[in-house]
Amino acid sequence: MALRIPFARACTRTTPTSPATSVILPHASQWRRNNATIAPSATKANGKTKGPTAMVFMNMGGPSTTDEVGDFLNRLFADADLIPLGRLQNYIGPYIAHRRTPKIQKQYAEIGGGSPIRKWSEYQAAEMCKILDKTSPETAPHKPYVAFRYANPLTEDVYKQLLEDGFGGGNGGRAVAFTQYPQYSCSTTGSSLNELWKWRNRLEGKRAPGEADPEGAIQWSVIDRWPIHAGLVEAFAQNIEKTLATYPEERRDKVILLFSAHSLPMSVVNRGDTYPAEVAATVYAVMQRLGMKHQYRLVWQSQVGPQPWLGAQTSDTVKNLMKKGQTDMVLIPIAFTSDHIETLYELDKEVIGEDAEGHEGVKRVESLNGNPVFIDALATIAKSHLESGSACSPQMTLRCPGCVSERCLAQKEFFASQSKHLEAVLS
Amino acid sequence: MALRIPFARACTRTTPTSPATSVILPHASQWRRNNATIAPSATKANGKTKGPTAMVFMNMGGPSTTDEVGDFLNRLFADADLIPLGRLQNYIGPYIAHRRTPKIQKQYAEIGGGSPIRKWSEYQAAEMCKILDKTSPETAPHKPYVAFRYANPLTEDVYKQLLEDGFGGGNGGRAVAFTQYPQYSCSTTGSSLNELWKWRNRLEGKRAPGEADPEGAIQWSVIDRWPIHAGLVEAFAQNIEKTLATYPEERRDKVILLFSAHSLPMSVVNRGDTYPAEVAATVYAVMQRLGMKHQYRLVWQSQVGPQPWLGAQTSDTVKNLMKKGQTDMVLIPIAFTSDHIETLYELDKEVIGEDAEGHEGVKRVESLNGNPVFIDALATIAKSHLESGSACSPQMTLRCPGCVSERCLAQKEFFASQSKHLEAVLS
Repeated sequence: MALRIPFARACTRTTPTSPATSVILPHASQWRRNNATIAPSATKANGKTKGPTAMVFMNMGGPSTTDEVGDFLNRLFADADLIPLGRLQNYIGPYIAHRRTPKIQKQYAEIGGGSPIRKWSEYQAAEMCKILDKTSPETAPHKPYVAFRYANPLTEDVYKQLLEDGFGGGNGGRAVAFTQYPQYSCSTTGSSLNELWKWRNRLEGKRAPGEADPEGAIQWSVIDRWPIHAGLVEAFAQNIEKTLATYPEERRDKVILLFSAHSLPMSVVNRGDTYPAEVAATVYAVMQRLGMKHQYRLVWQSQVGPQPWLGAQTSDTVKNLMKKGQTDMVLIPIAFTSDHIETLYELDKEVIGEDAEGHEGVKRVESLNGNPVFIDALATIAKSHLESGSACSPQMTLRCPGCVSERCLAQKEFFASQSKHLEAVLS
Repeated sequence: MALRIPFARACTRTTPTSPATSVILPHASQWRRNNATIAPSATKANGKTKGPTAMVFMNMGGPSTTDEVGDFLNRLFADADLIPLGRLQNYIGPYIAHRRTPKIQKQYAEIGGGSPIRKWSEYQAAEMCKILDKTSPETAPHKPYVAFRYANPLTEDVYKQLLEDGFGGGNGGRAVAFTQYPQYSCSTTGSSLNELWKWRNRLEGKRAPGEADPEGAIQWSVIDRWPIHAGLVEAFAQNIEKTLATYPEERRDKVILLFSAHSLPMSVVNRGDTYPAEVAATVYAVMQRLGMKHQYRLVWQSQVGPQPWLGAQTSDTVKNLMKKGQTDMVLIPIAFTSDHIETLYELDKEVIGEDAEGHEGVKRVESLNGNPVFIDALATIAKSHLESGSACSPQMTLRCPGCVSERCLAQKEFFASQSKHLEAVLS
């Protein structure tokens, strides 16, 4: 049911009385100056809400078709936050990308012609927003966006879409950058935030640290990590239990759980990146939820190039266990929340298919994908973030001890500084 | 009050009725065959107990005087579990030990002439046993022992002492090897267990895997890890809060917490050692207990030699933060439970004294040492282990994926196999 309500009422904060939703006039210019306007399709809870709120899911993304593989790899190898190649990054990156494209295209062809990460991300964001509209009416309506670092929809396009939809660009309005990497790394969430900050500067005007934000710019906050959120842990644990239940009872207790996360170059680890410790925290929390009954290991996958990366490697681990006759094991992708090339190709085809020679005892748990327990968790995390009034976690504002990136410093200062707006928004 | 009770009564299990303690006849041979005898000074709860129980604290140890430094380093550099030096370990080890002795002697001289680890370990074990005698009367009396890997009292001497005290050597009896490293590493707890297993074989007779144990040998079980035990976490958290309270209120919230753990060579990490992930779990649990309010990092100290070790390094981290003007930080030794050269010299004198130039903002929390919260935690861990009837954690029986040590395999098989006795002892 759509109701047109007077402008004055849209600006007044009162306590919610009924669950009725309404569409406010989207073009009232004075309102737009102080609040975000919304696309005509969006709804606004009868004038008592501080919404609309843009919920921007950040992730690395993946090519949806094999034709997009080249561009995807080009962006990926150009990103020094993810793959530090030194001064010659701009030359070596495209070279590696070009050389790897046919091989990677073949891998994507084998998993159905593209990555399902866009489909899942859009679904997760939309479903989460539906829940949030009910559980957090004061910030409703929540509008879902997905911003990828290396594939469509790219961060710059999403920022433009936000502006088109009436957020920022003089209209103000609140947006939450919600990382879909549960554990923080400068290579992943950090890189996405650097990209978001870059486009904020380009599209809404650059400001020096300490200088006031452009009037009516988007007011950002960041959900930067959530490694042991109870709902996340529960979703992982249930999936593991489901897979364990497929083993005959007499073998079940002896199944080894192998938690597999994307590895990092040791140069990033030794700089003080928080990711390895946060992944370990997730693993320990899941094991606790499972009662610490199984043997387990945290192992690392997807190493690229000749530089040293953090191990033990997933592939070696599986091969070694197979050699020792320990052939019942479950792989758990613990640092990614939907299927992608690293699960569907690397774990399923390379590790299980080749390293374990397709042994029936070696299985992978389902990825979180459309799991309702997981999507509920996302909504709970988002709700408590919106209530907290914090711009980001205290941990996000501490740069890696060995970090020398001025961009990283400026980005962190920018997001932390947004707390000044949030107090106003939430007061 | 000591009572002599008839032999028949000592063998009968009844429900406890009174807190009176008694000393049973220590030399009744039939009893000795099925139960441990005890030293005359030990007490036994009026015939209803399955005790005495030997509680053997395992740790690396440290020289109590500067004269012991040479032997200590010799043992340390001879241990391939701790410092893998390859085939030439027996030549290179003593050479490095010899070269380092004067320097390390000087360090011990500077911290008072020796390590306090023996004093603290003996105190912790004795105090824990007093608590256990009350909370676990069915396994009382509990006799405290301390077995060090590289310093007196050495594992072999402690095993001989156990035999002298009437445990094993035909008498049976129960002993718990309780690692004092909260987080398991093959370099630390694993090395201590290898040593204990070696002396078990030498002093009580070697058996092939699967073969019955020598009659009347000690029945062992192992507390092999306890990284996030609530009492441990509480003890750390309270010490951190105490140190934070020494900062002026306006600076307190901005103090950076640096959790520092002994590093590992990357060869050990990449073999699949569980230590980095378990240390990370401890850190996360402590941060949760503290409400995640502070910026923090897990950093790694005590790297030796030219091989790559896990970072970021504690020393570099402090220097980098100082350079960035972040001069309020608290160092928390998170993987050791009492003071030792790595806290008193490395953190206090090198990191705080030199790297931070003694800046008043850089502090170290007190080590756990005689902390009653910590000692209570030890007693709770021990009690629940004794009740569990388990020989070790499921995790202990899974070798590192990259492990090729047959000794490690045999040791794990030995300790895991002890569960057959424990069922009998605890039934």
